Amino acid sequence: MIYEELASALYVAMERSDTLAIEQLIAEMQPADLAEFVRHQTIDATLKLLTHLPIEQRAEAFGYLEVDTQCELAENMTEEGLSQLFVHMNSDERADLFNELSEDRQQGILRRMAKEEREDIRRLASYEEGTTGAVMTSDYVTVPAGVSVSRALDIVRQTAPNAETIYQVYILDEHQKLVGTLSLRQLILARPEAGVDLLMTTELVSINASEKQEEASRLISRYDLLALPVVDDENRLIGIVTYDDAMDVAEEEATEDIHKSASVGPLDDGFGKAKISNLYRRRVNWLVLLVFANILSGAGIAFYEEIIEAYVVLVFFLPLLVASGGNAGSQASTLMIRGLATGDVSARDWGKLLSRELIVSASLGLTMAATIAGIGFWRGGMDIAQVVAYSMFVIVVVGSLIGMSLPFLLNKLGWDPATASGPLVTSIADIVGVLIYFGIATSLLDFGL
Amino acid sequence: MIYEELASALYVAMERSDTLAIEQLIAEMQPADLAEFVRHQTIDATLKLLTHLPIEQRAEAFGYLEVDTQCELAENMTEEGLSQLFVHMNSDERADLFNELSEDRQQGILRRMAKEEREDIRRLASYEEGTTGAVMTSDYVTVPAGVSVSRALDIVRQTAPNAETIYQVYILDEHQKLVGTLSLRQLILARPEAGVDLLMTTELVSINASEKQEEASRLISRYDLLALPVVDDENRLIGIVTYDDAMDVAEEEATEDIHKSASVGPLDDGFGKAKISNLYRRRVNWLVLLVFANILSGAGIAFYEEIIEAYVVLVFFLPLLVASGGNAGSQASTLMIRGLATGDVSARDWGKLLSRELIVSASLGLTMAATIAGIGFWRGGMDIAQVVAYSMFVIVVVGSLIGMSLPFLLNKLGWDPATASGPLVTSIADIVGVLIYFGIATSLLDFGL
Repeated sequence: MIYEELASALYVAMERSDTLAIEQLIAEMQPADLAEFVRHQTIDATLKLLTHLPIEQRAEAFGYLEVDTQCELAENMTEEGLSQLFVHMNSDERADLFNELSEDRQQGILRRMAKEEREDIRRLASYEEGTTGAVMTSDYVTVPAGVSVSRALDIVRQTAPNAETIYQVYILDEHQKLVGTLSLRQLILARPEAGVDLLMTTELVSINASEKQEEASRLISRYDLLALPVVDDENRLIGIVTYDDAMDVAEEEATEDIHKSASVGPLDDGFGKAKISNLYRRRVNWLVLLVFANILSGAGIAFYEEIIEAYVVLVFFLPLLVASGGNAGSQASTLMIRGLATGDVSARDWGKLLSRELIVSASLGLTMAATIAGIGFWRGGMDIAQVVAYSMFVIVVVGSLIGMSLPFLLNKLGWDPATASGPLVTSIADIVGVLIYFGIATSLLDFGL
Repeated sequence: MIYEELASALYVAMERSDTLAIEQLIAEMQPADLAEFVRHQTIDATLKLLTHLPIEQRAEAFGYLEVDTQCELAENMTEEGLSQLFVHMNSDERADLFNELSEDRQQGILRRMAKEEREDIRRLASYEEGTTGAVMTSDYVTVPAGVSVSRALDIVRQTAPNAETIYQVYILDEHQKLVGTLSLRQLILARPEAGVDLLMTTELVSINASEKQEEASRLISRYDLLALPVVDDENRLIGIVTYDDAMDVAEEEATEDIHKSASVGPLDDGFGKAKISNLYRRRVNWLVLLVFANILSGAGIAFYEEIIEAYVVLVFFLPLLVASGGNAGSQASTLMIRGLATGDVSARDWGKLLSRELIVSASLGLTMAATIAGIGFWRGGMDIAQVVAYSMFVIVVVGSLIGMSLPFLLNKLGWDPATASGPLVTSIADIVGVLIYFGIATSLLDFGL
């Protein structure tokens, strides 16, 4: 509500080029809201607007923009202006942007940076996208082992202006190895003359920089951490991942899994901003692949052409039966994929889950068979009622078991279980459904083969 | 890795009833890991294990358990033991558990609590599930407006042992109204004699207790907050929601949306622990409902029985064509639903998104038509090739537009757009697909109607 009011006032002020009003309004806005506002503006208007902000707030608001937008803006700034911004941005956001800039810009920026910052950018930008190293920041507080609480607090105060969080303090030995952590809460409650070594927590949760970013996010969520220390292969502290970045990662990962559930490939820039060509590419592969899967269903039907000609009424029940198998299978695979993604179930539980699914799907199959039997009787008499009821039961059970097993199988093969999307499970269930249905029909109906 | 080692060592120690080893091991474990371990133990073993922990850690580990498990354990504790636990639990977790206890236990607990805590439990437990009030905690730090920084820091130190976070401090006026916030970072960097009123941030992000919990989670994620203040209708501060609870809410909401995408109802206790009867109930409704939707497809086919008898080859392409429409529609609806859920797109963008979808789906339709035309020619000659190619194009475009529009329509009607699940969209696309296919076939094929 308040955002909408500020936004429309700012819009009016910009129309009138009322500098004073613009400056007042953007000072009142949260950086995240300013970024939201800017999203609907042209590049030129945005650049002009950003000049009204003091450099710290400019860098903060800038950090809330998508990397694509940041990049577009950066390419339109002077090298001087962009360098200033780089100095004030969070180290992780800065490295992400750096990776997207043109070679020329990259060189220009590096030339203007102090040695230390140049190395920081190079180091953070070197981690592959999707790894913990690529989302970590190098702005954290460390204290050497052996110091007193009051000395540690002094260090915290000195480092605070450049640290992304000061609420976790990391204690390093002389080889830069991480030996413990202390929270600021512990520090301000402790006696000033106490030593940090006696107070610090030594049961550490940490992660290697090469691990996947979703693992970092999972650890932060599991242990309710404010920040997760990131170490190299020698257990030297090289960065931290903060909870807010973990929230973003978790949201991205959920979005990716949800898109996969409908066999849509990952969209880097989000659905709202995605280009037509990108949307096309992310959707076409599976659609075409599934056509070939569905040809098998068609071939199954063709194989039974004679019984269809003899009993055309069977076709009436075809979409309903195969769809039920697909739907039950989608339900089972979706429950399983999400359970695996959140750690609610693990691959070891398969046997137990499969037997539970057997009972659940048999109950579902019985309900569905009862539902459909009456309609079968009405459309085609007792024989047809029997065929469709039996088929329904078997199709629902088999569809469910396929849906439950496929994510596990993919997991075992080292693939992402989310590949077992609804459309894929549905297509497989369709083929199996056709074979089950006409197979049962052939064996039960009086048909002179 | 480390968890697995500790867990198996603890398992051995429990087998041997080696009290000393048990106590050492659980002291080393993270509370979250201990909760994970306990999940695979019997109630009796868990109760015994918990007694080895000092009460603070016991309460913390207990808080990591699912409410169901907490409740089962609580009903098996002495009233004395449970009351002790209640005193040391986080106020939000305590209220959630309280709501699940039997009437007898509730009364017993309340009798044993001090007046202040009794009121706190009653108040927090009174908020409806799913609201911000139901996830907020009442353990936060407030300081009166007008005090100095050094006084504020004293208050922080005094309140720290009972506060869930001390990193945000809330400044209240004499009517308990929220007038500003200060971070502990700001406090420890400020001059001790400075007044908090001049330092505090007055552009506040806050939420009313009656708002939905996912809105609280969204605000925390959008503004990268550590904690979000919760106010009543008079803007009096009554609680805070911390980032770790927001992460849990976001995960729950994503899980619910993912389950809905496969038309599975919400499972309160997660998939791994869900009872058979519960799984059955959450899945059967939509399955049966969709049977009736698919009867329409069957009826559509029955309506065209004559053309099917004349050209049985048409049946070969039926599953493939209708599945393609359903798949394209699922992709579109899933992209839209997730976009709406994350705020990436809003209902206002419909027009723009629909025209983009028209171009994307037309491109997809053309690709699919080209793919299928050859197979059509091979199976049934030029006529059939034409029919299936035209049908494929129209079906993919129409399916996509339905998939894109349905979530919007539901949103407009005030329903959850996620109800436009893959199976629902697929069923609708099936019916439409059957009509388009046989409609085109009837008009193009030489068929004596």
